[in-house]
Amino acid sequence: MTSTSIKAVVLLSGGLDSTTTLAIAKHQGFACHCLTVQYGQRHAVEIDAARVIARQIGVEQHVVMPIDLRQFGGSALTGDIAVPKDRPLDSMSEGIPVTYVPARNTIFLSFALAWAETLGARDIFLGVNALDYSGYPDCRPEYIAAFEKLASLATKAGVEGTAFKVHTPLIDMTKADIIRRGLELGIDFALTTSCYDPTPEGLACGHCDACLLRLKGFAEIGISDPRPYAN
Amino acid sequence: MTSTSIKAVVLLSGGLDSTTTLAIAKHQGFACHCLTVQYGQRHAVEIDAARVIARQIGVEQHVVMPIDLRQFGGSALTGDIAVPKDRPLDSMSEGIPVTYVPARNTIFLSFALAWAETLGARDIFLGVNALDYSGYPDCRPEYIAAFEKLASLATKAGVEGTAFKVHTPLIDMTKADIIRRGLELGIDFALTTSCYDPTPEGLACGHCDACLLRLKGFAEIGISDPRPYAN
Repeated sequence: MTSTSIKAVVLLSGGLDSTTTLAIAKHQGFACHCLTVQYGQRHAVEIDAARVIARQIGVEQHVVMPIDLRQFGGSALTGDIAVPKDRPLDSMSEGIPVTYVPARNTIFLSFALAWAETLGARDIFLGVNALDYSGYPDCRPEYIAAFEKLASLATKAGVEGTAFKVHTPLIDMTKADIIRRGLELGIDFALTTSCYDPTPEGLACGHCDACLLRLKGFAEIGISDPRPYAN
Repeated sequence: MTSTSIKAVVLLSGGLDSTTTLAIAKHQGFACHCLTVQYGQRHAVEIDAARVIARQIGVEQHVVMPIDLRQFGGSALTGDIAVPKDRPLDSMSEGIPVTYVPARNTIFLSFALAWAETLGARDIFLGVNALDYSGYPDCRPEYIAAFEKLASLATKAGVEGTAFKVHTPLIDMTKADIIRRGLELGIDFALTTSCYDPTPEGLACGHCDACLLRLKGFAEIGISDPRPYAN
């Protein structure tokens, strides 16, 4: 990475989508500063995955930001609500499931914005997807546009003329498209973890929304998911 | 506080402005859930002040959320840049000073939004002021309006029809007006701390922007600030 590269902040969870997003940002020539937010999620195994991925793909810097959303509760991913299993795929975009974490992407993007401004960057990458997804409101294009508008009003850089850009290269892609693009870019998907409810050893459950969407994506392109599953 | 009170999330820093905002929210009949963000600021004495104030005013709940913005740097309040002293008061709203913390209010409001949604609340109180202030972009009415718009797009509650409201009761008040209103509501301002650069014992410096604006406010209403100063 040369010193003339344009800096970007990339939100990296350690999942399939954010890893592909990172590979795309890097392929586009950005100097990637990765941010992983450890928010008290059950699936903390993804933090370890993010560290390995950042090292393997090669990034300028990787910051893990611990915050404790369990203090608020209200989600199956941070509280005591059970993660739903074996939901029909065609019902996932109808209604918002209990795995929704209140204001999660707004918190993530706020941190990314703070770091971008400090770095002198205007580009933020977020691996949201509005097609094969769980119906979360903060994955929609209109939400992203509202955040970009806020970012320019919120910051010193914005007042001074910086138009922050939230890149969402996956937003219109199917899970199969994302996997295909990731494979083209050389991602080892065995390193990525998507499961909302992994075993203590980090094996994917195979039954939560995230596992079902991922398995469907691999099935569609006719290859098997290299990530180990519990059953 | 009766169980029929309407819940609100109040951002409480332990300073003069947020304490008056809390007193106003409580006076308006809200059941106040206070959120203090410990973001790695030099003036951590304000966290202790916030705890005492929340207990004294009487709130439903007080959550202190530690985050570490020092991982990003970029501000005199979190990094190694010196806090400016003895700036002329009439120059404070010209340009944005080094005490600006990148995206701070966006991070604070994102957490407040997450908690509000979890509580089933739609009201958030923030003690920003666009008159006697340090020129921060994230204290302006247009910024607040953009956040409200974002909040409704970002959340399950928003999708289901909740219009989040960010109350900024101080936004058009002078510092003197704020102190006057706080005194009417029975605030003991000796408990509040505004200084950006207190001594290790928690004494205010008397020379940073926050001290100068506060001292001017007390001087205008002809009473002395009960908070102890270093010199």
